[in-house]
Formats: sequence, C-alpha cells, structure tokens
Amino acid sequence: MMYGASESDANLYYAVKFVVPDPFPFFQIGSKKIILMSDLELGRAQKQAKVDEVLSYSDLQVKSRVEKARVADVTAYFLRSQGVSNVLVPENFGLGLADALRKRGIRVECKPDPFFEERVYKSKEEVRMITRSLRYTEAAIYKLEAVLRQSKITGKKLKYRGEWVTSESLKKVLNVSMMENNCIGSHTIVASGNQGCDPHQEGTGFVWANQSLIVDVFPRSGDTLYYADITRTFVKGKATPALKVQYEAVKVAQEKGIRMLAPGVNGRDIHTAIAKEMESRGYKTERRSGVMVGFFHGTGHGLGLDVHEPPRVNTSEHFLKKGEVVTVEPGLYYPGVGAVRIEDLLVVKGMGHQNLTVYPKKLEIA
Amino acid sequence: MMYGASESDANLYYAVKFVVPDPFPFFQIGSKKIILMSDLELGRAQKQAKVDEVLSYSDLQVKSRVEKARVADVTAYFLRSQGVSNVLVPENFGLGLADALRKRGIRVECKPDPFFEERVYKSKEEVRMITRSLRYTEAAIYKLEAVLRQSKITGKKLKYRGEWVTSESLKKVLNVSMMENNCIGSHTIVASGNQGCDPHQEGTGFVWANQSLIVDVFPRSGDTLYYADITRTFVKGKATPALKVQYEAVKVAQEKGIRMLAPGVNGRDIHTAIAKEMESRGYKTERRSGVMVGFFHGTGHGLGLDVHEPPRVNTSEHFLKKGEVVTVEPGLYYPGVGAVRIEDLLVVKGMGHQNLTVYPKKLEIA
Repeated sequence: MMYGASESDANLYYAVKFVVPDPFPFFQIGSKKIILMSDLELGRAQKQAKVDEVLSYSDLQVKSRVEKARVADVTAYFLRSQGVSNVLVPENFGLGLADALRKRGIRVECKPDPFFEERVYKSKEEVRMITRSLRYTEAAIYKLEAVLRQSKITGKKLKYRGEWVTSESLKKVLNVSMMENNCIGSHTIVASGNQGCDPHQEGTGFVWANQSLIVDVFPRSGDTLYYADITRTFVKGKATPALKVQYEAVKVAQEKGIRMLAPGVNGRDIHTAIAKEMESRGYKTERRSGVMVGFFHGTGHGLGLDVHEPPRVNTSEHFLKKGEVVTVEPGLYYPGVGAVRIEDLLVVKGMGHQNLTVYPKKLEIA
Repeated sequence: MMYGASESDANLYYAVKFVVPDPFPFFQIGSKKIILMSDLELGRAQKQAKVDEVLSYSDLQVKSRVEKARVADVTAYFLRSQGVSNVLVPENFGLGLADALRKRGIRVECKPDPFFEERVYKSKEEVRMITRSLRYTEAAIYKLEAVLRQSKITGKKLKYRGEWVTSESLKKVLNVSMMENNCIGSHTIVASGNQGCDPHQEGTGFVWANQSLIVDVFPRSGDTLYYADITRTFVKGKATPALKVQYEAVKVAQEKGIRMLAPGVNGRDIHTAIAKEMESRGYKTERRSGVMVGFFHGTGHGLGLDVHEPPRVNTSEHFLKKGEVVTVEPGLYYPGVGAVRIEDLLVVKGMGHQNLTVYPKKLEIA
C-alpha cells in the first residue's frame, strides 16, 4: 500500500503512471492494482491510470458508515472489505496514517527502500526518456556557453549585450531554454569563484572573469517526469595554472572511474579509485578552519523519476548491475584556487557502460 | 523533530528557511533549533540556515560508535546525548525512520496537521511574496491572451504565426514567461472544450475556436518558494449562449463567495452559498453515465509554501481567520456545453479581505 501524490512521490507514479497533485491511496492485492480517487480525479484516472481498478473514494466514505470518515477510516474499511489485515508500505509512508491504521487493527509493516527494486533497472524506453531530458539540458548549456563566449571581460566582471553577467542571468538562460522543451529546472547551480566551493550553493551575483564557474543542471521533464543531470566547469578568460591542473586531475579521475563502470563492479571501488587518483596528485580532502576542502562528496547517484535515487556510488558497497543509470561526478574544491566538478550520466550495460552525456569537457572559454 | 528535504517539505523549509535537496534531521529542543548536516551542506548551512546550531552529521556518525550507523542510529544517539527520549513529529514523518527510532527506545508521537499552526497565518512579507508570484503569473496569462487575440480562426482551430495553436504551445508561452521571472510552473492547465470538464486534465492537442478554454496556473517562485494560483476561462471567437450563461453563473457565485470572506465566517457557509447560487440558476451537480458534472470540487484552499495547504474552503467547517490566504474557485463542468472555472487568490484581513488577483474576468477574446 502507498498513500501520496503521484506528482511528487516517484514510487507511486511508477506504480500508476498517472500524475495527481493531491494524495490518494494505492493498493496492490495479489497482482491487482487498485486506487481510490476523489470525484475531482475520477474521470481522468479511469482514462489514464495504469491500474486494474479505480474506485470512488467518496462512495467508500459513505459505505464506511463512519461519521466524518477520514483517510484512515476509509482505507481500513476498504482493506477489511477485501479481507486484508496486513499491509506492506514504503519507508516514506506517513507516520500519521500508519499509526491511525494500526489503531484500527491493520498491521502496517515497512519495506526497506527500494520499495520497487525494479525501478533501479531502467528499460530501454526509460533510458530514452532520460536521454531526451539530458539532450534538452545540454542544449541549454550550449546557450549558456554562447553567452559566455560573446561576453566581454570588463575589469574582473563580464558584460553581455551591455548588462553584467550574473549567476541569476545565466540561470535564466538555462531554465528558459529548458522550459521551451518542457524541462523544469529548479535549484540550477551557476556558481562562480569561491561560491562553487560549496557544492550545493546555487550561486548569486556577478560571474567573475578568469575564475571557475560550476554549472550543474538537473531538470525534470514535464512530459515524461524523468530527470537528467550534468555538470560542467568553465572559465571565461584564462584559468590560473593551479586551476588548470586541478581541472585535469578531476577530468582524468572521472574518466578513470567511468572506464571501470560495468556490471558486477563494486561502486565503492570506483569511488576509491577516483579519490586515490586525485589524492596521488596531491589533492587532500580535509577540514580547514571548519570548511571541507578536496573531494568530500560521493562519486555519483542513481537517477530516474527521482534526481537522487539508488544506487549510490560512494563509500558504501554496491555491486553495479545492468540497467542502472548513475552519475559519475567527482569534484575538487579549494577556496582561493577554485571549484571543479565534472559530471556525466551513464547507463550500465551488459558488457560495460554507455555514456549518455555528449557535452564536451573544456575548461576555458575565450 | 522532522526529517526530510527542505526543498520539497514545506514545514521543514518554514522552520529552517534554507533549501536542501537531500533529507536531513531537524530538532527543536525547548526553543533551540538544531540541524544535522552532511559535509556537503555544512558550510552553506552555517551561513544560511535560520537555526541555532548546525552540527556535522558525519561527526555524530563516528561518535555514535555504531558500525555503519544509519540515520536512526545517529538520530537516536544525538537525542540521548541531549537527554531526550520523546519526540513529536509531523504526520508525513516517514514510518521507516519512526519505527527504527522506536526500536531504539525513542518514543515517537505524531502531531496532527498542521504541524506549525502559524504557517496558516501569513505575515505581510509572506503576502508580498505570494503577490509577487501572482503578478508574474498574471503577466504570463496576458501573454497567452495576446497570442489568442492575434490568432486566426481557421476552420474550427486556431493559427498563430502560421502554426496551429495547441494546449502545449500555450503552456509553453505561460511556462517560459514565468521562468523568465524564476517562477516554476508545473502541471499548468490549458484545457480546451470537453477536456476542461475534467478539472485536473492538463490539456493536450488543438485549442478549438468558439469553445471554452480553462487556463489554471500555479507556479512556485524559485526565489521565495511561495506559490500563486489563478484560473481564467476564455473563448477565442464567440461563446454559445449556453456557455455565456454558465460563465455568468460562476462569476456571480464567485463574487458572492468573495464578498462573504472575512474573519469568523465559516468556510462551509461560503462554499454552500456558492453552490446554492449556481444550483438556483439550474446547474445541477450529479453523476451522468459515470462522469461528474456541475460543481463537484471544493471552493478553495489555502496557499503558501505549498500550493494546497490548510485551510480548505469546502463542505467541512472552518472559521476563517486574519492572515489566511485562500483561493475562491468555483466551476461548472458540462461536457457538450463546456467548462468554466474562475479563481482568485485572497487574503483574509481584519475587516474583511483583500483580493490579491487583479486579472480581469472576461470570457470572449475577439
């Protein structure tokens, strides 16, 4: 059983392939999928939802004979009417409803994530949808690159068509371009200079010439609901020698990690190989006056209907399998020198992997 | 206590005013707010989060001395170190973590929604942020209206600059315009003809001349995270007499409901008055061959950091209070005739209300 809004709950969308903005109950009894729908959604659900039965929530509310019947009442009534007294729910199932069902005599047990193991293994169709989201994302980054190329270095800042170039103006270029293809970018990262050293800092204010610029873009398609994710690091103008060497270290380490990607390989080994490659070049990971520097995040994450989903490629053990779609995104962050992160999106294939990302990796933009 | 990603969990964002895409634990002990942050977010959290203390999750992981410590281990360790053994959590708190904490001797109790009562009452600053989102939304609808005005009726369809006008092309006009102001529209509704009779049908395919067009837009601001929500109904060309009368019924009923909006008034009375006004004009609400027709949804909902939040204005009792921001959005849906919904966004004020929406209500576009 699940209860949620399929617009925001990826497991629920995966089960019903139908977008609803408000929470509703989902049941699978044996192999039969059943949803209870409000009057507002009933018609649409009957046409679109990939389930075996769509029942009217308000009908069941009346049948339950509970005055002011709440979700727990209606759900418990429905389960009893089906002869069910035990339900298995995902980890994110709301405690409020779980406790209310337990009070009504239903045994509610949690299934550890992932709720649907098969969600991790992407079908060809899913890989196609992810790749389409990625192409639109890359098209947006090409537009950003064109803006940088056409910008003029003016002092330490950049001017484009008479206006200062800022994180905000570049994010607009990305997000508007993606929206033209119904890809919804949110929390897009365009972080210049030291701002990029905080890996989730979205970036604000001026984009500086001759400094690193992290561009990390991960929109969701409004058509398919599948995400894409890519990061590139640019310098408008000339990078310092130190930043160039740092970029090369990340690039070589990333490509080393990517080459290892294949079924049966432990993700931890990939993460360790990447970390070692950068460390062997003298890049230490440590806390300096309270702030982490070096490579202090995981190598990658699964992606699909969620932007971050299993498996993780990091210090935990995970043997990769065919059909898994993961990012490989090492980074090095040293305030004063700059931030570098390079991220590709890949699918594990029978014989190795395929890199879904085609965007070139080039630091400097003249 | 809460555990979630503040990007998608409005209560958590309300508490910390800091956007994080991955889940983290939040505690309030007495009046002291504490969050545990991954190394990735630590620096940013210390600068931006509106809390009293930001602790390193990985430090606590080590201190807990549990091998492969999971969230429940770290959280239970932290709570014990603070001498806390009971926690109050919101209804959407994940059952997986709740049960794991209970197993570790922590008493976890659910507080019925709303978790933060005060979220319902918007400050002046919050009303300003909502209004700003609404203005950007209205600006987008003006653009859509301009496209319709400049479109040519060609047979039963519309042409704009040589291309057929579709739900998709109009949604792009709206979403791109909003994105230019960093407002993120998703599941925007542009539904022509009978499609609009399914109130949550997003709309696809041709926009038909001389038929109703439901335009329902509810973006979230990427800057403030506050939503807006507005619906207008248009006809490009000439509406049938039946549709005109139906539009008038909804408009009069909506304005009647709006006039009632004031502190102390029962939302149910507003809903009933609106329903009666339309019924008295002969508009019945019923199921016809399995499909609901008439006015079969609530009158309105609260709005803020969630697009749908308390209070509801519907058949349930709720006495309105100063500072509540709600929609008033009656509709009438009759396949064959058409769909009409008109939605404004209002704030309850000391003496009555203020309508935040300024977009005119006019059915036909020549």
